[in-house]
Amino acid sequence: MSELVSFGETMLRFSPGKDERLEDAEEFEVHVGGAESNVAIAAQRLGTPATWMSKVPENPLGRQVVGKLRQYGIETDVSWCHRGRQGTYYMEQAGEPRGTNVIYDRQDAAITTAEARELNLDLIRDATVFFTSGITPALSPTLAETTMNLLKAAKEGGTTTAFDFNYRAKLWSPQEATETLTQFFPGIDVLVIAARDAQDVLGLEGDPRQIAHNLGSQYDFETVIVTRGSEGAIGWHDNVVHEQDVYETDTVSPIGTGDAFTGTFIARRLEGDDVPTALDYASAAAALKRTIPGDVALLTAEEVESVVKHGSKAISR
Amino acid sequence: MSELVSFGETMLRFSPGKDERLEDAEEFEVHVGGAESNVAIAAQRLGTPATWMSKVPENPLGRQVVGKLRQYGIETDVSWCHRGRQGTYYMEQAGEPRGTNVIYDRQDAAITTAEARELNLDLIRDATVFFTSGITPALSPTLAETTMNLLKAAKEGGTTTAFDFNYRAKLWSPQEATETLTQFFPGIDVLVIAARDAQDVLGLEGDPRQIAHNLGSQYDFETVIVTRGSEGAIGWHDNVVHEQDVYETDTVSPIGTGDAFTGTFIARRLEGDDVPTALDYASAAAALKRTIPGDVALLTAEEVESVVKHGSKAISR
Amino acid sequence: MSELVSFGETMLRFSPGKDERLEDAEEFEVHVGGAESNVAIAAQRLGTPATWMSKVPENPLGRQVVGKLRQYGIETDVSWCHRGRQGTYYMEQAGEPRGTNVIYDRQDAAITTAEARELNLDLIRDATVFFTSGITPALSPTLAETTMNLLKAAKEGGTTTAFDFNYRAKLWSPQEATETLTQFFPGIDVLVIAARDAQDVLGLEGDPRQIAHNLGSQYDFETVIVTRGSEGAIGWHDNVVHEQDVYETDTVSPIGTGDAFTGTFIARRLEGDDVPTALDYASAAAALKRTIPGDVALLTAEEVESVVKHGSKAISR
Amino acid sequence: MSELVSFGETMLRFSPGKDERLEDAEEFEVHVGGAESNVAIAAQRLGTPATWMSKVPENPLGRQVVGKLRQYGIETDVSWCHRGRQGTYYMEQAGEPRGTNVIYDRQDAAITTAEARELNLDLIRDATVFFTSGITPALSPTLAETTMNLLKAAKEGGTTTAFDFNYRAKLWSPQEATETLTQFFPGIDVLVIAARDAQDVLGLEGDPRQIAHNLGSQYDFETVIVTRGSEGAIGWHDNVVHEQDVYETDTVSPIGTGDAFTGTFIARRLEGDDVPTALDYASAAAALKRTIPGDVALLTAEEVESVVKHGSKAISR
Amino acid sequence: MSELVSFGETMLRFSPGKDERLEDAEEFEVHVGGAESNVAIAAQRLGTPATWMSKVPENPLGRQVVGKLRQYGIETDVSWCHRGRQGTYYMEQAGEPRGTNVIYDRQDAAITTAEARELNLDLIRDATVFFTSGITPALSPTLAETTMNLLKAAKEGGTTTAFDFNYRAKLWSPQEATETLTQFFPGIDVLVIAARDAQDVLGLEGDPRQIAHNLGSQYDFETVIVTRGSEGAIGWHDNVVHEQDVYETDTVSPIGTGDAFTGTFIARRLEGDDVPTALDYASAAAALKRTIPGDVALLTAEEVESVVKHGSKAISR
Amino acid sequence: MSELVSFGETMLRFSPGKDERLEDAEEFEVHVGGAESNVAIAAQRLGTPATWMSKVPENPLGRQVVGKLRQYGIETDVSWCHRGRQGTYYMEQAGEPRGTNVIYDRQDAAITTAEARELNLDLIRDATVFFTSGITPALSPTLAETTMNLLKAAKEGGTTTAFDFNYRAKLWSPQEATETLTQFFPGIDVLVIAARDAQDVLGLEGDPRQIAHNLGSQYDFETVIVTRGSEGAIGWHDNVVHEQDVYETDTVSPIGTGDAFTGTFIARRLEGDDVPTALDYASAAAALKRTIPGDVALLTAEEVESVVKHGSKAISR
Repeated sequence: MSELVSFGETMLRFSPGKDERLEDAEEFEVHVGGAESNVAIAAQRLGTPATWMSKVPENPLGRQVVGKLRQYGIETDVSWCHRGRQGTYYMEQAGEPRGTNVIYDRQDAAITTAEARELNLDLIRDATVFFTSGITPALSPTLAETTMNLLKAAKEGGTTTAFDFNYRAKLWSPQEATETLTQFFPGIDVLVIAARDAQDVLGLEGDPRQIAHNLGSQYDFETVIVTRGSEGAIGWHDNVVHEQDVYETDTVSPIGTGDAFTGTFIARRLEGDDVPTALDYASAAAALKRTIPGDVALLTAEEVESVVKHGSKAISR
Repeated sequence: MSELVSFGETMLRFSPGKDERLEDAEEFEVHVGGAESNVAIAAQRLGTPATWMSKVPENPLGRQVVGKLRQYGIETDVSWCHRGRQGTYYMEQAGEPRGTNVIYDRQDAAITTAEARELNLDLIRDATVFFTSGITPALSPTLAETTMNLLKAAKEGGTTTAFDFNYRAKLWSPQEATETLTQFFPGIDVLVIAARDAQDVLGLEGDPRQIAHNLGSQYDFETVIVTRGSEGAIGWHDNVVHEQDVYETDTVSPIGTGDAFTGTFIARRLEGDDVPTALDYASAAAALKRTIPGDVALLTAEEVESVVKHGSKAISR
Repeated sequence: MSELVSFGETMLRFSPGKDERLEDAEEFEVHVGGAESNVAIAAQRLGTPATWMSKVPENPLGRQVVGKLRQYGIETDVSWCHRGRQGTYYMEQAGEPRGTNVIYDRQDAAITTAEARELNLDLIRDATVFFTSGITPALSPTLAETTMNLLKAAKEGGTTTAFDFNYRAKLWSPQEATETLTQFFPGIDVLVIAARDAQDVLGLEGDPRQIAHNLGSQYDFETVIVTRGSEGAIGWHDNVVHEQDVYETDTVSPIGTGDAFTGTFIARRLEGDDVPTALDYASAAAALKRTIPGDVALLTAEEVESVVKHGSKAISR
Repeated sequence: MSELVSFGETMLRFSPGKDERLEDAEEFEVHVGGAESNVAIAAQRLGTPATWMSKVPENPLGRQVVGKLRQYGIETDVSWCHRGRQGTYYMEQAGEPRGTNVIYDRQDAAITTAEARELNLDLIRDATVFFTSGITPALSPTLAETTMNLLKAAKEGGTTTAFDFNYRAKLWSPQEATETLTQFFPGIDVLVIAARDAQDVLGLEGDPRQIAHNLGSQYDFETVIVTRGSEGAIGWHDNVVHEQDVYETDTVSPIGTGDAFTGTFIARRLEGDDVPTALDYASAAAALKRTIPGDVALLTAEEVESVVKHGSKAISR
Repeated sequence: MSELVSFGETMLRFSPGKDERLEDAEEFEVHVGGAESNVAIAAQRLGTPATWMSKVPENPLGRQVVGKLRQYGIETDVSWCHRGRQGTYYMEQAGEPRGTNVIYDRQDAAITTAEARELNLDLIRDATVFFTSGITPALSPTLAETTMNLLKAAKEGGTTTAFDFNYRAKLWSPQEATETLTQFFPGIDVLVIAARDAQDVLGLEGDPRQIAHNLGSQYDFETVIVTRGSEGAIGWHDNVVHEQDVYETDTVSPIGTGDAFTGTFIARRLEGDDVPTALDYASAAAALKRTIPGDVALLTAEEVESVVKHGSKAISR
Repeated sequence: MSELVSFGETMLRFSPGKDERLEDAEEFEVHVGGAESNVAIAAQRLGTPATWMSKVPENPLGRQVVGKLRQYGIETDVSWCHRGRQGTYYMEQAGEPRGTNVIYDRQDAAITTAEARELNLDLIRDATVFFTSGITPALSPTLAETTMNLLKAAKEGGTTTAFDFNYRAKLWSPQEATETLTQFFPGIDVLVIAARDAQDVLGLEGDPRQIAHNLGSQYDFETVIVTRGSEGAIGWHDNVVHEQDVYETDTVSPIGTGDAFTGTFIARRLEGDDVPTALDYASAAAALKRTIPGDVALLTAEEVESVVKHGSKAISR
């Protein structure tokens, strides 16, 4: 039985070699990535048994997604189907001023028609934590409804619910996102939200500390994490605000940093850490993730522990 | 001004390394392929100026398609758009008994909404030959209508029309194909059709010679080519039937063989060859194509000439 | 609960690109392979839940092995340890007259010290079939003893035992192999053995039919399979001998053919097939395996079914 | 009809993987590069139809050059020939203190025998701008004469002439360069020159502002651009001097930076920009080029626009 | 002290991936190859200490050639120079009817100016065998004179001279080759010549046995080997003719087959084999070479021995 | 005859692509590396003829090691054997905070059984300098004894002995290292030691200048070099202490930096440089090494000279 269950879309990512242009690429590297499976993997690597639920096309592309997630250590419980595509995205990563660009090609993905009755709700009810993100309900009206039903199932089972706001401008407008996502807030125990989303999407004012406090008070969350990129994160819990700095890192791939953070935070909380300690481990895992290509936090608990203790290390031989 | 103008969808093809499985691939090679651009390239390589028309998304994937086609020598005249995907397909090529498998991921491609008014019809009217295939109208009802309108534009301009029946079972049923495609037949001068499609889709009976003769007589085509894979091809013209054998070849990539054949046939006819001579060159180009990776006949007129004359050659040094 | 449990060593395989020489390689492709995990994967792909048990070093190389096996679909239940190496082998694959050459580098692997008390014997007792091969006891005296103890555990649990003789001349002499392996025979229900090993190692005489019959009678096996490479296989069961031909195949990688055969045979027998039908599926899976790079039968039940029905297929598009 | 026509040599570049040594390379990446085609591509990407003229060997290497330039969007008008090599160069790119090293292998290239009568002079006469560089006349005495004749043809057609001084110490001495290139100056409208070349080759004194002013006054240029690497550029026009800073950039490939600058400057001037605005866009394109592997500015007008407006951007998803 | 010394040009070979076209290649594999170094390597692998002499540019490309030859086991004794190119060639290998095509880019190579006084003639005088081929004098008049001088030095030292006729149509005409090469014949002890060259270049008539006999008698060679591709070889020695069949082989790379044959023949003769036995080993080495990518016979004496004894072998594990 | 002879183990290094994880790698790059061959190569590149001695398995892996070392320019004199493994190591290189990690897989390597009588002691006696390092005696008790015997042979021949302390925590404890290595000190002329090892292993106190002085005085070394990573090095000679700074460098591969330093120091001392000059060249070579992938200092004497003179350089074209 998994302690953490997550639900969402995991895409195949196609990316040319480092610095190459999509327009000119002769080869694409294939990775898998999705916020909810990223979070599950990070938690599993930290010692929390985790399962990812989804709806996936029964073809080699769907099997590639499931196989890779299993390789990285988590369990998968998917509804295999014969209609609907495997969602993909194209990513071109480059330095400044070109920057990183993403082209989503995920419309009509198999998961967009996933209804709660197709999914193994008992897994959610029996878990300790259920996680999903604001990307999932953005994908289709059906999924918005399904998200709500899964959060309800979690409540029925006494399962703690964690949710990453994860606003994606290429999927919906701030208004649509706000309207849909705030309906979920009463069913959510732990909210993770970027300060930028709180300000630009929810229209909240004040500094991140105030935002965390205001969100926590207004919606009766148990915990609110406000992330601020290179400026660290704010944790609000029991009406107390904790600040967490980032660890310095040589960034290879920024994608998935937040998911590594969130998965590690959940895992450490389940291990019994208090919020500031869990934030510290989460921050260390996020720094490690940035040194790893792809979307996934392919790290070990020992490595996270070592960063928390020593920051960095010399060649070990 | 191009002598040959073609219209259709060109996809990005993603394929793992030779013999590798899609399910397990870490990298995909990127190729471009589509019947109508393949035909234009083959014709251009044989000396016939050619232009491919289409509707393509204005993004790096669309630019990749257009750039590669230009690299291979043809002109492109596309309607760039901001809605609609770049169609793709996945191909796993293997020996027997595994065989080659294709997964289309082309629904909602930009071209599916292409209407005649978005296209440069004067190019068609001013060309000597206009070519498209049965894949195009299979992609959407809009495209079926557009195909009809382009064939009409060709007629207005006195442009010869060539058409490859190209039935694709993953796109529509034999009944749908027959109903739609036979409506185009009166507007077509040169029909290319696989014997298998004539039998299984159109329900024609008799041997390929009879099929060619019957099709030619019934629909008043100027020329009918019936292809028979490794058994060669039949050409019907002026009420005479010509048989053409295949040239032996070490097959590396069978995809695009028929398009190399058709493009070369058109080019050589435009050069003034009679039908049997054009079939001979077409067959030589088809054999060369099978030695070339990807969908495209990246060959030279001299190489085709050499195969027609000598069959094959030793190391040249 | 897995229906099939196997126990054995899985190595990392390092191989240069096709036809390249080990001496001159700049890069090695990394695969995982081992008879017992290969068998488990083949069975799982055919629909039989399977678990591989082993002892593996707690380092990135051990995690690579476990991750890849999970990717391919099976469960793993391993004793992680901090002493002992990850076994590897180097493979250079070439055409004739060079042939394929293997350099084992597996001495002192972690598994060589595995004792029964470190392993989850209940998994074996609760399974329907337990499988291991003659490679395992060849690796160390400890493993010979452990193999005997696992076979005993299977008997305790009423679990059917299947065993592939798998003689490896680079590991031990025919005399050593015969002495050790025949001690296991009384505890084995299903024996798979190459005709060559029966003749050269066990010193049996007669044609493969006779060998199968004599082995079956002498040691009271439930089933004996004698494999004969490109000449097919013999199945002896209930005192009846069945002959099975091979399916023609374009061989890309011969390694793992026998394991695909055995895993499929077990899976189909568990599905209720009689011996000749199971042999037919096993032979189809073996033919498919040979088209797939690496050691593992990364195929689907549908593909095996299709080969049994149609032999081979054209491009599907 | 192209607004910009350029003439010069485009080489095949062979380079080992990043940081690898030429001496030890097992593989070379193949790129195409040449100052005059680089400038044409940059202009085309900014919206100015451009054609590159040259003389190229009729073999696969020559076709590779022409095909790649067409892929990148420009037209080509070449004299195909059967004598003369395809020029190549080898490039090893490394960090400090090793630095980047170039080995030219371009002697006896096909273009070294190109005479004006082999080229399509009407293209030059009908263009709005004609561009070539100081590399072209350095390649052979024939090319020095041809360069002069092409500049004359431009004058005949009322075509603006732009010229990059581009001194290459591996091709000729400062004295040879000065003697030859200053003869061209009376026929040149827009001169681009590195401050370093103005000082070390032409022997001019003073700061770059003075150099620009003195050059402009002395030779009656319409516009003089003096480039200063990381210190930006100076534009002299209508007796006014404009200073342009560089945009910060994460350099992946410095080769071609100046060509991206010049091509963009020309394109924006043709669009009607005043000199300081055109310099700003040119500087933005140069910064983007440095993030792109190879010699060519494979960028879009939108990206340049975005850098001018915002400097850099976050991940767009 | 080396028993075998050879002199000639070794080129860098650039080839796209298998079956890819030069015109479309994004990457070139780099190999080294030249008849005289190939022969030296084959002999060394069979146990004969060998040295290759040449003139090579002092740059990374020249060092690559020398380094790779040293890697393969031979000694090198080169005149390093600062003028003259590193010769290269481009090779596109394909199946029929496309065939394999070679583009030489070797004019003005450093070796073309090599004079005897730049070379270590004592190495030749002290060797047991000196080898060069008809390619060397074809490269420049200077090299034709140098070849004559090296053969003279060999005679002075009592060194046996071996010579491969190796006509290359891309370097000179049959008349030029005949005129130059027959002048060397009096100084040559062992002549290797393709039957095709004997017929088409020297204009000899009769079957290969007669050709061998006539050549041997007319020019007073000690030994004449006439090679016939897939039909084997003829050895004439002491007025006796020996026929040698080929061993069957799965050809990966035919380039260098003849050099592997000749190098092995020389090595085995030096070991004391009689002519038919040496031909047998030479034929075995030639078959092995064809399974190895590149130009070089990267094989072992044990492998050659094994082919002579067993023809081919199964997987060894 | 080589001026420098070194003795030690050279391993095959397997490393995934830059930043990739060992756990997830599909391909390993193959390099060769070992302190003693690294030192020999650095010295050879600086102009000192050098030979590496070792004991190596007679198989393709052993031949790969020897071939690559020969490619890089040194001579090899190895005892080929049929027992014992080729030592390997796995390296994952990453930025901070992940860092670089090494997994040794070198136990039971062929060299661990090497005795002095198997080695060509005359090579050592006839050399000017003999070099080995503290890694060699750490590999086995036999090798500790052999190391002592080789140092004695050097003394017999009047050969200067140089020794790098090179403590490896994964091979032995500080106590074991101190006990064994200090026994060698009386036979050593030139000692190289990291300040960190002097402090943490030998337990010396004081700053590096004092350490160098104390070591030199206590053990009567001719020269002591104390290296301090990015803080440069201290050279003690004739009772005088010299300080050497590092040259700035863009690090690609830190492995082998110290060996490049030591090999260059030895070579320059043999050329007649005084200690401070030799330290300067050594420091320049170390900076260049860090820009080169792999373990080996594949640089040229001219490049080192250029760094000493100019620090760094712009693009040379």
